[in-house]
Amino acid sequence: MGSNSFGRIFCYTTWGESHGKAIGVVVDGCPAGLEITEDDINKKMARRRGGQSPFTTPRAEEDCVEILSGVFEGKTTGAPISLIIYNKDADTSKYEPIKDILRPGHANFTYLKKYGIFDYRGGGRSSARETAARVAAGAIADKLLKNMGIAITAYIHSIGGESIASVSAETLSESTISCPDSAAEKRILQKLKKAKEEGDSLGGIIECKVENLPVGLGDPIYEKLEAVLAYGMLSLPATKGFEIGSGFTAASMSGKTHNDLFSLDEEGVIHTTTNKAGGTLGGISTGAPLLFRVPFKPTSSIKKPQKSTTTKGEEATFTLPAGSRHDPCVTIRAVPIVEAQTALVLADLVLKDRTRRI
Amino acid sequence: MGSNSFGRIFCYTTWGESHGKAIGVVVDGCPAGLEITEDDINKKMARRRGGQSPFTTPRAEEDCVEILSGVFEGKTTGAPISLIIYNKDADTSKYEPIKDILRPGHANFTYLKKYGIFDYRGGGRSSARETAARVAAGAIADKLLKNMGIAITAYIHSIGGESIASVSAETLSESTISCPDSAAEKRILQKLKKAKEEGDSLGGIIECKVENLPVGLGDPIYEKLEAVLAYGMLSLPATKGFEIGSGFTAASMSGKTHNDLFSLDEEGVIHTTTNKAGGTLGGISTGAPLLFRVPFKPTSSIKKPQKSTTTKGEEATFTLPAGSRHDPCVTIRAVPIVEAQTALVLADLVLKDRTRRI
Amino acid sequence: MGSNSFGRIFCYTTWGESHGKAIGVVVDGCPAGLEITEDDINKKMARRRGGQSPFTTPRAEEDCVEILSGVFEGKTTGAPISLIIYNKDADTSKYEPIKDILRPGHANFTYLKKYGIFDYRGGGRSSARETAARVAAGAIADKLLKNMGIAITAYIHSIGGESIASVSAETLSESTISCPDSAAEKRILQKLKKAKEEGDSLGGIIECKVENLPVGLGDPIYEKLEAVLAYGMLSLPATKGFEIGSGFTAASMSGKTHNDLFSLDEEGVIHTTTNKAGGTLGGISTGAPLLFRVPFKPTSSIKKPQKSTTTKGEEATFTLPAGSRHDPCVTIRAVPIVEAQTALVLADLVLKDRTRRI
Amino acid sequence: MGSNSFGRIFCYTTWGESHGKAIGVVVDGCPAGLEITEDDINKKMARRRGGQSPFTTPRAEEDCVEILSGVFEGKTTGAPISLIIYNKDADTSKYEPIKDILRPGHANFTYLKKYGIFDYRGGGRSSARETAARVAAGAIADKLLKNMGIAITAYIHSIGGESIASVSAETLSESTISCPDSAAEKRILQKLKKAKEEGDSLGGIIECKVENLPVGLGDPIYEKLEAVLAYGMLSLPATKGFEIGSGFTAASMSGKTHNDLFSLDEEGVIHTTTNKAGGTLGGISTGAPLLFRVPFKPTSSIKKPQKSTTTKGEEATFTLPAGSRHDPCVTIRAVPIVEAQTALVLADLVLKDRTRRI
Repeated sequence: MGSNSFGRIFCYTTWGESHGKAIGVVVDGCPAGLEITEDDINKKMARRRGGQSPFTTPRAEEDCVEILSGVFEGKTTGAPISLIIYNKDADTSKYEPIKDILRPGHANFTYLKKYGIFDYRGGGRSSARETAARVAAGAIADKLLKNMGIAITAYIHSIGGESIASVSAETLSESTISCPDSAAEKRILQKLKKAKEEGDSLGGIIECKVENLPVGLGDPIYEKLEAVLAYGMLSLPATKGFEIGSGFTAASMSGKTHNDLFSLDEEGVIHTTTNKAGGTLGGISTGAPLLFRVPFKPTSSIKKPQKSTTTKGEEATFTLPAGSRHDPCVTIRAVPIVEAQTALVLADLVLKDRTRRI
Repeated sequence: MGSNSFGRIFCYTTWGESHGKAIGVVVDGCPAGLEITEDDINKKMARRRGGQSPFTTPRAEEDCVEILSGVFEGKTTGAPISLIIYNKDADTSKYEPIKDILRPGHANFTYLKKYGIFDYRGGGRSSARETAARVAAGAIADKLLKNMGIAITAYIHSIGGESIASVSAETLSESTISCPDSAAEKRILQKLKKAKEEGDSLGGIIECKVENLPVGLGDPIYEKLEAVLAYGMLSLPATKGFEIGSGFTAASMSGKTHNDLFSLDEEGVIHTTTNKAGGTLGGISTGAPLLFRVPFKPTSSIKKPQKSTTTKGEEATFTLPAGSRHDPCVTIRAVPIVEAQTALVLADLVLKDRTRRI
Repeated sequence: MGSNSFGRIFCYTTWGESHGKAIGVVVDGCPAGLEITEDDINKKMARRRGGQSPFTTPRAEEDCVEILSGVFEGKTTGAPISLIIYNKDADTSKYEPIKDILRPGHANFTYLKKYGIFDYRGGGRSSARETAARVAAGAIADKLLKNMGIAITAYIHSIGGESIASVSAETLSESTISCPDSAAEKRILQKLKKAKEEGDSLGGIIECKVENLPVGLGDPIYEKLEAVLAYGMLSLPATKGFEIGSGFTAASMSGKTHNDLFSLDEEGVIHTTTNKAGGTLGGISTGAPLLFRVPFKPTSSIKKPQKSTTTKGEEATFTLPAGSRHDPCVTIRAVPIVEAQTALVLADLVLKDRTRRI
Repeated sequence: MGSNSFGRIFCYTTWGESHGKAIGVVVDGCPAGLEITEDDINKKMARRRGGQSPFTTPRAEEDCVEILSGVFEGKTTGAPISLIIYNKDADTSKYEPIKDILRPGHANFTYLKKYGIFDYRGGGRSSARETAARVAAGAIADKLLKNMGIAITAYIHSIGGESIASVSAETLSESTISCPDSAAEKRILQKLKKAKEEGDSLGGIIECKVENLPVGLGDPIYEKLEAVLAYGMLSLPATKGFEIGSGFTAASMSGKTHNDLFSLDEEGVIHTTTNKAGGTLGGISTGAPLLFRVPFKPTSSIKKPQKSTTTKGEEATFTLPAGSRHDPCVTIRAVPIVEAQTALVLADLVLKDRTRRI
C-alpha cells in the first residue's frame, strides 16, 4: 500500500497537486448498496470551501466533485469510487519569483531534499488542498456511518489561546467559524481581526465528538481506535498533536480521580459514569462518546518578510507574493476536514469489526 | 496485515498474553547482515524490567529473550527473526475471584463486548506485558539505526504535575526513574512516595529526542513521520496523546513567533535556527532533532475499592487482590518502551526511504 | 489496501467501468526523477488498442491517457501519478435488452450475487477494459525497468491449439497478432478466420520472457517472484493458469533431467547451463531469463444463442446483441497487457529489493 | 506487511529455519469463539509428517505443535495465535562439507546472492520445512471453514506422467500416497520404486477440490479467488504452475464448447450445467466446486553427483551427503500442504466477504 492511501478495508487513495489539472481520490472497499450522490458530497465540500468568513482564504474554488466510477443508479456497486475535483482557480505565476527560496514553516525544503524535485506551484503535493479529496471521500464514509446512527461533530475549541467554556449545538450551527460558544466566538473574532490586520496568523485547537458509536470498535494492539485516529489526525497538514479524553491533563492526575467507574443506567445497561477515557478502553470503543482534540499551528504564510535561504544555500529573504491568498487561521477550515478524517477512520473500523467473531 | 503487526517493510508482529506460556514477536523485513545477539536484546529488556525502583512493579520476570530464527553466525539473514520470552513468574490464581467484575480503567469490559471471551489472567492480551515484545523487537531496530549514527533518548518530562526544567545526560544516566533534572527528580520522588503510601497512582509525560536523523524520512501524505510516530505511541497502553515540537502550545501562538527560519551554519549547510516544528516539515524530517512528548494516564490499578458492576450487569465493588503487583506510575517503565517504539517506527521509514528516487 | 490495488511499494490502484465516464489508475510509490510523458504511455496504449487486426474488437477507443498529477517538468516527483482515460466510444443502449439475462462465461451472475447490484453496461467493472488502466500504469513501470536494462517481451505461444516452434524477434515485430513464428502465424490466422466466420472464439497461450533481470529479485516466502507473477497474471480477465519454466511438464520429468546445473561462463560468472527453472530458485531471480506462460480461455461472447436463465431464475436464451463489438480471440490483445502486468510486478520487486541488506 | 506473511484479515506469518531451534507461525485475525485444540492441529500435522510411505523422507520429526497464545478455555479469543514446533531431529553436521557448493535446483545460490549470508543447515529458511507451519495455521483456517460446511480435498492427479482416470473417496482414504484411483496408484508406485532404486526423483500434479463454497467469495480486481489461490500455490516450494478448471486446455478450445451454460436445478436455484470455469466467474465463486491443479517439479536432491560450482566460483561436483534424508517425490507430502494453503486463502476471503454490502 502506498503512502497516499489510508485504511485497511474502507481504503482510499488521494492524488493531485495544488495547481495541477485536478485533485482526486479513489475510495476502494466501500460496501455495495450505499446511496450516494454528487450532491451529498458537494454539501460537505461547501463546508470546507474558503471564502466563507473573512478569516479564511479568499481562494474561491467551486470544488465541484464529480463521481467517475463505482456508483450506478444512485448506489455504490462495490467497485472503486473515483472522485475528481478540477483545479479551476489556480494562478501559478505568482509562485515563479519565490520558487528558489525556502519558505519558513513550509515543506519545500524537505520535499526537495527527499525527492530532488518539487512542484512548487501553490505548494504542489504538500498543499492543504489535498484535504479537499479527503472531505470528498469522507462524505461517503459519513453516509455509511449515518446509516448506523453514528454522528460526528467537530468544532473550534480554542484559537489564539481563547477557549470555549461550553458547547451549544445551536451556536455552532450559526457560527461562521464553527465555534460552539458565543462568548468565546466574540473574543476569537477580535483576535482574528487583529492578526489579519497585522499580517499575522493564529493557531488553534479543534475538538471532535462522536456520538452513538457502538461498543467494540478498534483492534488491539496496533489498530487501537485512538491510535488510528491519531495517525489520521497527524497526517493532516499543520497539526502538532492529538489527545483523547483527559489527554495531557491525565499526566498530572491520580488514579483515584482519573478512573471512570462502571455503573448501570436505568435500563440496566453497563456504562461509565464519567468519560475521562474519551470513549475507549484498551483501544476499543466503550459506547461512551468519543472525544478528542487536535492542535493546529498558526498558518506559516504570513505577510512579513522572513529571513531564509535559497534552495542552493544562499542567504535570502522570503516575502509572500503580493495578492497571495491564504488563511490567517487554518484551524477554522480544518473543522470539516477533521470530521471527514474521523469518518474515514471509523468507516474502516466499522467494517473490520464485522470479522471479530465466528 | 493483522492488527498485531506494525510497519511496512521493517514489520513486526507481537503475540502472547500476560499469563500465558510465553509472549513473543516476529520481526520480518530486517535487512540481512546486521550483527545482533541475545545479549544486545537482553540489555534493552533489563531497562524495561520491573523491580528497579520502589515505584515500579515488583514483578521480577527475568524476561530473558531467546532468538529462535533469522540470525545465523551472529548476523541477520533476511529471514524473519522470532523472539520468545517465557512467562515464568505469573501467578494467575489471584485473578480468579475478580474475573467477573469490570475493572475501572481496564479493558476487560471492551474485550468481552467485542470478542465475547476474555483471557482475564493478568489482563491477558490487554496487559502492558505485550510491550516487552516491542522492546525486544526495538533492540534490533535500534541496532540498525545506531549503525547509521541515529540516537534515540527518552526521559521523564513530568510526573504528577512536576516537570523538568532542563535535560542533563549525566543526571539521566544516574536516575532510577529516567529523570534528567535532579531538582525535578526530588519533587517527583516525593510525590511518588506519597501516592504509593495512599495506594494511589500518578500520570506523567515522557519526552523523546532523536538526534542525527537524516533529512528526508517520512512519506507524504499518510505516512508522515509524525503521523506514524503518533500511531505507534497511541498504540502503547495508558497513553492519552501525542505532540511534536511546539505541540499543543502552538495553538496559542502566532505565525510570526512560531515559524522556524532557515539559515546557514558555519559550513554553509541549511538548517532551521529554531525547532518549534520538532524536526519535521510536511511530514518529512528536516535534520533537526526530532522532539515529541507522550502523556500517560495514572495507573488504573489502585489500592482502593471502586464501584463497578459484574460482567453480567450486577452492581459490585472492585478491589485489587491482596498482593497484586502493579506500578504506581507506569510512566517510569514506559521510558524504554517509548524508545523502542520510536526505533521501530524509524527503522521502517529508513528502509522505505531507500526507494524514494530512481 | 483495497482489492483494486496491486504492489507493496510501487503500488497502483485502478478504477472505472467499461461504459462509465472514464477509467483510470493511480500509481503510488514510483521513485522521483523518472522521465515520463503522456506520449511514452500512449505508445503502450496503442499496442493494446482494438481494431488493429481483423480478429480483435473493432471498438476503436482512442484511449488517450492524460497525466493529472505526479509529474512535473517531465519527471516524476514522488507524488502519486493519476492517469485518466475517458470512455468516448461507449454505446450502452444495446446492453439494455440483455441486462436481466445471465451471460455464459461472464461475471454478471457472480457480481449480482455478491454485491446485489451490477453495472451491466459493457460488463461494468468486470470488463477487460480495466486492463487499459494497467497498460497505462505498466508504461511507467516499464520505463523504470528499462533504465535498469530489463527487457520484457510477450508473444503468442499458441492459439486454438496451433503452437509456435521458434521465436523470431523480427517475425514478432511484423506480426499483426504478436506471433514470433511465421509458419505458426499462418496456421493461426486460418483458424481465426474460420472461428470468426462461425461466430465462434478461440483460446490461446501467451509466453513472456524477461531478459537482463538482476539476480536477487523476489522475497521469500510469500512474495516469491513466481508467486507474485502468478498472482498478477491470474488477476487478468480470461486467464486460466500460469506456469514458469518447465511448468506442468515438470510433473512428468525426473530429477536427473530436470535439475539445472551450475557452471561458469567465459568471464567466470556463475550461471545455470539450462533454464528449466524459468529464471528463479527459491522464489528469487537467478539472472537467467524469466520465462512463463499464461493460458487464456476462448472469448465467452460468441455469436450463437446460448441457453441461460434470467437474473431472477427464469429460463431464457442469451443472444449477443446485433452489432456487438468483441474479440474472437482475447489472447491477441492480451499480449501487451501481460507485458504491462509483468512490468508492474517487477517494478515493485526491484524497489523492495533495495532494502535486503544493511 | 512482511514477505513472510499471507492474508489480509485472516493473516498469518511463518518463521524458522529447517535446522534452527524451532519453526512456527503467528495467526492474526482469526475470529474469536472458534473451538481449537492442539489435537485438532496435530491431526493435520500427522498427515504431512514424513515416514508414512517408503517414498517420503524418513526424517521422523514428531512435529508436535504447541499453542502458545490466543486460545483460552479451548476457544480463540481474537488475539494472535502463536504456534511453535521444535526441531528435534535435525542433524546439521552432514551439511558442513557441502556448505560451499551450489546445489542444483536449490536456493542457496539465490539466497547468498540476495542476502550475502545463508543458513545452509538443511536449507535454512528455503527448506520445505516451512510448510509445516502452514499446515499448523491451515488447521485453524480449516476449522473455521468446516463450521460453514466447506470441504477441501486434495489428491494426487499424476506422478511421473501416470495420471488418475477417476476419483474415489474410498480409494483416496486408504491410499498411502493420497491417490484416489487404485489403477493409477499401482502404476505410480512402480514408478516411484524404480526412481528410488535409481536414486532419482519424480514430479507430479496435485488436484484440489473445494465443495460447498458459498457464491460470492473473491474480490475483484486483484484479489480474485483464483489469483489469490495461484499466489498461495506458487509460494509453495517446488511448484511450477497453477491452473483452474479447464486450465491450459482452455487455450485449445473454442467458445462454443468452453462456455458453462446457466440452468435451474430442481429447486429452481441457478447453477452452471458444466464447470469448465472451475468454480469462479470474474474472480468470484459461483457455488460450483472449486477445482484446480498444481504441478510440482521432481525433488532436486538426487543421489547422483552433479556438476556445479562453489559459492566462490570454482568448478565443483555436488554429491548428496551419505545418509541424507529426502523425498524421492515431494508431491506426495505436498497433498496436505495444498489443502492447508487452500484453507488459508479461503478463510481470508470468507472474512473479507463479510464487508461486501452495507
